[in-house]
Amino acid sequence: MENNRRSFLKKTAIAGLGASVMAIGNTLAKSDINDLPELATTKDKNKIKKDPSLIYMGFIGVGLRGEEHVRNAMSMEGVEITAICDIDPERIRITQELIASKGRKPAETYTDGDYAFMKMLNRGDLDAVIIATPWEWHAPMAVASMKAGAYVGVEVSAANTIEECWDLVNTHEQTGKHLMILENVCYRRDVMAVLNMVRAGMFGEILHGRCGYEHDLRAVKFNNGKESGGLGVEFGEKAVAEARWRTQHSVRRNGDLYPTHGIGPVATCLNINTGNRFLTISSLATKSRGLHKYIVDNGGADHPNAKVIFNLGDIVTSMIHCANGETIIVTHDTNNPRPYSLGFRVQGTNGLWNNEGNTIYVEGKSTTPHEWDNSEVWLKKYDHKFWRDLYSKAEGAGHGGMDYMLMYDFIDAVRNKRPTPLDVYDAAAWSSISNLSEMSVSRGGSPVDFPDFTRGQWIKRKSIFAADDKFPSAQ
Amino acid sequence: MENNRRSFLKKTAIAGLGASVMAIGNTLAKSDINDLPELATTKDKNKIKKDPSLIYMGFIGVGLRGEEHVRNAMSMEGVEITAICDIDPERIRITQELIASKGRKPAETYTDGDYAFMKMLNRGDLDAVIIATPWEWHAPMAVASMKAGAYVGVEVSAANTIEECWDLVNTHEQTGKHLMILENVCYRRDVMAVLNMVRAGMFGEILHGRCGYEHDLRAVKFNNGKESGGLGVEFGEKAVAEARWRTQHSVRRNGDLYPTHGIGPVATCLNINTGNRFLTISSLATKSRGLHKYIVDNGGADHPNAKVIFNLGDIVTSMIHCANGETIIVTHDTNNPRPYSLGFRVQGTNGLWNNEGNTIYVEGKSTTPHEWDNSEVWLKKYDHKFWRDLYSKAEGAGHGGMDYMLMYDFIDAVRNKRPTPLDVYDAAAWSSISNLSEMSVSRGGSPVDFPDFTRGQWIKRKSIFAADDKFPSAQ
Repeated sequence: MENNRRSFLKKTAIAGLGASVMAIGNTLAKSDINDLPELATTKDKNKIKKDPSLIYMGFIGVGLRGEEHVRNAMSMEGVEITAICDIDPERIRITQELIASKGRKPAETYTDGDYAFMKMLNRGDLDAVIIATPWEWHAPMAVASMKAGAYVGVEVSAANTIEECWDLVNTHEQTGKHLMILENVCYRRDVMAVLNMVRAGMFGEILHGRCGYEHDLRAVKFNNGKESGGLGVEFGEKAVAEARWRTQHSVRRNGDLYPTHGIGPVATCLNINTGNRFLTISSLATKSRGLHKYIVDNGGADHPNAKVIFNLGDIVTSMIHCANGETIIVTHDTNNPRPYSLGFRVQGTNGLWNNEGNTIYVEGKSTTPHEWDNSEVWLKKYDHKFWRDLYSKAEGAGHGGMDYMLMYDFIDAVRNKRPTPLDVYDAAAWSSISNLSEMSVSRGGSPVDFPDFTRGQWIKRKSIFAADDKFPSAQ
Repeated sequence: MENNRRSFLKKTAIAGLGASVMAIGNTLAKSDINDLPELATTKDKNKIKKDPSLIYMGFIGVGLRGEEHVRNAMSMEGVEITAICDIDPERIRITQELIASKGRKPAETYTDGDYAFMKMLNRGDLDAVIIATPWEWHAPMAVASMKAGAYVGVEVSAANTIEECWDLVNTHEQTGKHLMILENVCYRRDVMAVLNMVRAGMFGEILHGRCGYEHDLRAVKFNNGKESGGLGVEFGEKAVAEARWRTQHSVRRNGDLYPTHGIGPVATCLNINTGNRFLTISSLATKSRGLHKYIVDNGGADHPNAKVIFNLGDIVTSMIHCANGETIIVTHDTNNPRPYSLGFRVQGTNGLWNNEGNTIYVEGKSTTPHEWDNSEVWLKKYDHKFWRDLYSKAEGAGHGGMDYMLMYDFIDAVRNKRPTPLDVYDAAAWSSISNLSEMSVSRGGSPVDFPDFTRGQWIKRKSIFAADDKFPSAQ
């Protein structure tokens, strides 16, 4: 116990520097994860009184993203918002107001420093924990949550390094607890319709996929220190919201920092980890211009941030080779002006979906040979029954309803004590692109091997994502 | 002379096996190029009587492509169609008919075997030679034509191997004769407008390009042996037109077999060879499915060609790294059903053109922030003056008029005894992608170095392609 107390004191001392500094400047070392304060024992937990008909949920991080998760979770039947945790008391206050606005009893709150989440996990009564914190905290919090016996839903990316990916996998295998990567784009309506088309064989044998994160994040990476999206060129301690911590990744790292919104949907179409796997990745980065230019254009050449050197190349492209002979191109493009796109393409021997231009072609079935169909008719025809059944409830939820779908599916797994539809192997494989692409960029685009996080099981595993036999009407 | 005669006899003996076999099954060895029959000496040439006000042109290969070149050349002022060469007497007949239909005197013809072009070059009076033959013949014919003292316009790709690329460059440097790669897409109206925008700085500093050849060629790679495009699954000796020779490249090779329609326009935007250069290429190929499937679907599983193993992966993607920090993605996708696209994107620090969807975005100038403009208004505004001046003449010419533009610009260089607007270094750098991508594919996507065909001169060379000071109105 003495050792644990010292460890805890060490942590709180670091946290005492100011949580924001922690989130901005430091990432946790491997040793930090093993060094986390100990969780309540099983014996302690058995003393806890719970209503077995309810799902007790805890939320680590209730910023803008976490708040949306709380909102969606509250709208599901039989869910208790048991506990919320955030280093920022203001975010706690806002979330409690949201909870009260729905006539719910207040959640218990944890806000005392970076390791308040450990106190929350120590309750021992949480069935599920949702993690929506800065990237550096995802893996250690997810590891601790699994050790605390909870289902874990973790925001994207789930991990920043290969070691963290293994930490997630190892902890899942040691504890038997399930982790779901909260990749909401897998639940986008057009994406699910295309998955439906893939599974119906409309595109034939799949050959190639494209995806990415092509999103002008300059107003996310910088603000005026007063409001998110507020014009300004501050980041780090002088900024608010994501610019406090996210921008530092662009200062130091050069790779595809945010791969999962793109790769998730393509991976489900290609059965990655369930009959297929990623073999290698080769990545190239362009020169870095956009962020510096934004600072100079909006803050002047004399602004202190005009001296910052950004390591992140403006456009990072990666090519992935898959075990079954498919290839995938992934793009990361966040530093310059451009309309938003996830750049999807799914292509097979019978035709393809091209999200750039919103077009589909299926040989022998498209209206005119050699000419694109507008994708709308196809996407409507192959609308996934998940969406047909739940659309009325999802309407108005975040990101066009897909955040509702995501939370619905996560809670469905918790309720039925089943594996989550997207799992720890998906979290590891998809998130590993972030670190592997850095390695390849630093080697001039040489291919880098993906670890096989399934330890060879991919050759026989079956996908349960968006499975036909598991939908609301069947419940 | 005795030695030359023996060499010539050896060639004609090979040619005697049947020109079609030659074109299908064999490529020329390096030694063949050095071993070509000798050309007429300068002394001989001086005896030739010519009208100095006319441009004397010879055409090697007057198939469908060559015929279009003859048509466009005839429409220019002061051009004599002096000689035409083809191994197929029927193509000679058709071309002579075309020439007669314009009230021109018949060209002299050369049709006696694979080396008839050497006899044509031996005339010694040709100012310019256009080469539109199977790929294997481009480099040796171009080398011989430069040695014969002519300007050379050679169809794409100009070369199949790195050695052939160097043969072109070396011969140009030894003879002082100019070679233009006949990359018509560089003259496409939207492509020239976008180049105009790039040069006007509309997209800011250029970061990234995309391009490719995404064209369902199944009805080109196979036919019924009677007509081009005729349904059927024959190739090689049993087929007609391009399927006689082109398909064999898909049987044996695995790489980006046809890169120049895509890379040409992007290279001009990125000043490749004129202040910038390609450094490395990394390529991946998908599995090969489409061509075999086409044979089985249309000829049955028992057709002899159903046993053919195609080495060419269905979709080959390459990433190129440039000296000034830009990256380019090039796609080759010819074996499966899909609408035609060259997949262009040109992206900089101020915005981008995305040909997939026909959209443009320019920060501060697009109609709505963060939303695409339809590209039409932009392309009209930045219409290149080459097109404005020549459009009425180009109308009705091949590929939407760009074939006319291409020939106009080639002949303009010949007439004014200037370097060609696209040159031997462009031909070598662009065409080398074909062979370099094969190397990278065979190494699992490892980056392969581009030779610097300019021998270091790229750091100071200036582009003359689509130069402002050289257009019809100025002539």
